[in-house]
Amino acid sequence: MTVTTPEGFRAAGLAAGLKTDGAKDIALVVNDAAAATSAAAAVFTVNRFAAAPVALSREALAVAKGGYAVPRAVILNSGGANACTGPDGLEDAKQSAGALARRLGLKTEEVLVCSTGLIGERLPIGKILAGMHHAVIALAATEAAGLAAAEAIMTTDTVPKTAAVHVGGGADGGGADGGGGADGGYAIGGMAKGAGMLAPELATMLVVITTDALIDSATAQSALEQACRLSFERIDSDGCMSTNDTVILLSSGASGVQPDPSEFAAQLTAVSQDLARQLIADAEGADHEIAIKVTGALTEDGALTVARAIGRSSLVKTAIAGADPNWGRILSAAGTVAPEVAPFDPERVEVAINGVTVARAGGPGEPRELVDLSGRQVEIRVDLGAGAASATIWTNDLTRAYVSINADYPS
Amino acid sequence: MTVTTPEGFRAAGLAAGLKTDGAKDIALVVNDAAAATSAAAAVFTVNRFAAAPVALSREALAVAKGGYAVPRAVILNSGGANACTGPDGLEDAKQSAGALARRLGLKTEEVLVCSTGLIGERLPIGKILAGMHHAVIALAATEAAGLAAAEAIMTTDTVPKTAAVHVGGGADGGGADGGGGADGGYAIGGMAKGAGMLAPELATMLVVITTDALIDSATAQSALEQACRLSFERIDSDGCMSTNDTVILLSSGASGVQPDPSEFAAQLTAVSQDLARQLIADAEGADHEIAIKVTGALTEDGALTVARAIGRSSLVKTAIAGADPNWGRILSAAGTVAPEVAPFDPERVEVAINGVTVARAGGPGEPRELVDLSGRQVEIRVDLGAGAASATIWTNDLTRAYVSINADYPS
Repeated sequence: MTVTTPEGFRAAGLAAGLKTDGAKDIALVVNDAAAATSAAAAVFTVNRFAAAPVALSREALAVAKGGYAVPRAVILNSGGANACTGPDGLEDAKQSAGALARRLGLKTEEVLVCSTGLIGERLPIGKILAGMHHAVIALAATEAAGLAAAEAIMTTDTVPKTAAVHVGGGADGGGADGGGGADGGYAIGGMAKGAGMLAPELATMLVVITTDALIDSATAQSALEQACRLSFERIDSDGCMSTNDTVILLSSGASGVQPDPSEFAAQLTAVSQDLARQLIADAEGADHEIAIKVTGALTEDGALTVARAIGRSSLVKTAIAGADPNWGRILSAAGTVAPEVAPFDPERVEVAINGVTVARAGGPGEPRELVDLSGRQVEIRVDLGAGAASATIWTNDLTRAYVSINADYPS
Repeated sequence: MTVTTPEGFRAAGLAAGLKTDGAKDIALVVNDAAAATSAAAAVFTVNRFAAAPVALSREALAVAKGGYAVPRAVILNSGGANACTGPDGLEDAKQSAGALARRLGLKTEEVLVCSTGLIGERLPIGKILAGMHHAVIALAATEAAGLAAAEAIMTTDTVPKTAAVHVGGGADGGGADGGGGADGGYAIGGMAKGAGMLAPELATMLVVITTDALIDSATAQSALEQACRLSFERIDSDGCMSTNDTVILLSSGASGVQPDPSEFAAQLTAVSQDLARQLIADAEGADHEIAIKVTGALTEDGALTVARAIGRSSLVKTAIAGADPNWGRILSAAGTVAPEVAPFDPERVEVAINGVTVARAGGPGEPRELVDLSGRQVEIRVDLGAGAASATIWTNDLTRAYVSINADYPS
């Protein structure tokens, strides 16, 4: 149930020596379909120190939009972000794209590149090229090959993250045969990495999603943007992306099924949310996964801003780490949002934590002792009492372990 | 060297039983001068869940602006924030202001109220009134009385924070006689509390500054706003204030010295920056104090936004906690600022940590091993290479101890 689930894709993941511990660090995802039925789309970081692979992939997508190429392969590596590496770093990224393109009979601009790891150091390009050659030989359409790719992009992740869905046809939605189209439906599969989710500006989140639905690149791009807005951009705090964050969608068209665009976007959103939740679940050092649902807002944007303000508060996050249903910190965080962004009357605001309404009318509600925070899942619901719009942000608690991981991570 | 340093002020601080450990928890600062020579100004939190004492003090200042009153006394308490306590909480605040006014022969609106501590619980008003009566008896113009007041407003602070300056005249700037005006000059003194500075939306910072300079309330207000902008609003991250944050300036005019307004504002700024630095130095669990200076910006606002983005990054703060000169995390945080807010070319940006230029032209610079982070003081200098404007933000590192304090603080 990963990038090899849809028809027409092969993947590989292996150790090329970039990670000192001998773990997998090079991954490939290849769309074997012809350009005519294929499509590609991507969403990139908005960080101004975007890494070399982001610059290169962005350019490739721009060329593709001109109709001259359709990106059909991705080479990914962990063990080095190739960010803040200047013209040399860009040259390294180009060299690996070019080498893979030659091996696969594609144009250079039909290969996308993703890197993750430490910033500011050049990649060992010799090891990457050698590893890539072995990876091409290892390419397979199997579940195992897809899983190997997902493992090869891990950094501080403790588990690989994959997801897939079968849509329509007679599929049971769980087959390991990699086929989504044979029975009249189509499939979407994906993999993701990223565990530094408390500070998304450095999460270096990488996501590759594949599908065998028959769609054009404009449909793919618009569906991907909608899916990202409701998934990866709603995990954690301020929505700022790291130097390397990239979400790629490749479609082979191999199922022959042309989905309704809005139905396709919804399915893609579901897969993206699944992967996003897995990222939060594996967040560095986290003991609690927190869903912050703001309801009763005048606008969705207002609800989102209030939810982000709460999700960004270190004091809310540490309170949850201490199993403390501290609604005062939640209200105080909500109170930092400007009235013009989210109009509400503080005296009408309600806060419920795991179903217990601990604050009512901007003051105390049910006894906080009723709140059970012993489990891993936490739901904070804030009703602004101002309208009918709502939004949810997913985040996690701030623990001693998070600090340890990020204070001791080698630079 | 505190609120009793300027002439015309008495203070007191004692234990009224609000804190369970028997520590001081009630403070008074009283201006004994006549209304005619007195002035008052204040800056309050912009948090929409502003506490009852903030609402009351704001109203008192508004009345004062009409010329009907001049606030000349402040009653402060720790051990309870009186925030999110509804109409009852407002009634409690009014009652303590009214009682103190009667004792001092002032109007109720000539008394300002500040509270700090936990949110969402009513204050034990009986204990506050009893403590206040004892505090009125204890009022004194001595250094010791000023220090007792500074101690009585502490929450998680480990040390009281006070500062003072003598301006002009023959003062040596260090006398403990409490007189600034006798020799032709004037004095400014202050006290502050607040240690949860990593998340200023809950810092519940309280500051009372006194002066014997002869100024009107409009001059006082404008000087205080300038001083806050360059001090308390520049410590830590996002400038959001808590439910209770209040900065009060009282002047007695007792020195008879009418200072030049811009000179007075500069001196007030110096005292405010002194107090602000003390807040950062005592920040919860911090091992490093970090000054983030952004230079070479096109506008001061742009420099400030970049500095705040860096100061708000949990990954930068944890890196410093781990004594890791991680310039990649600094650049990545800077890169999240929108180009229209702070235009700069990423390839011209330089980062220096404690004097070592570790990043140059958006890439690696001097070896990071040269950076010494063993001391408590850290200076991060980021030159954007785009203009001549600059700004500094003071923050601190994010440690395991910070998480422990905030996860285990009783709600």
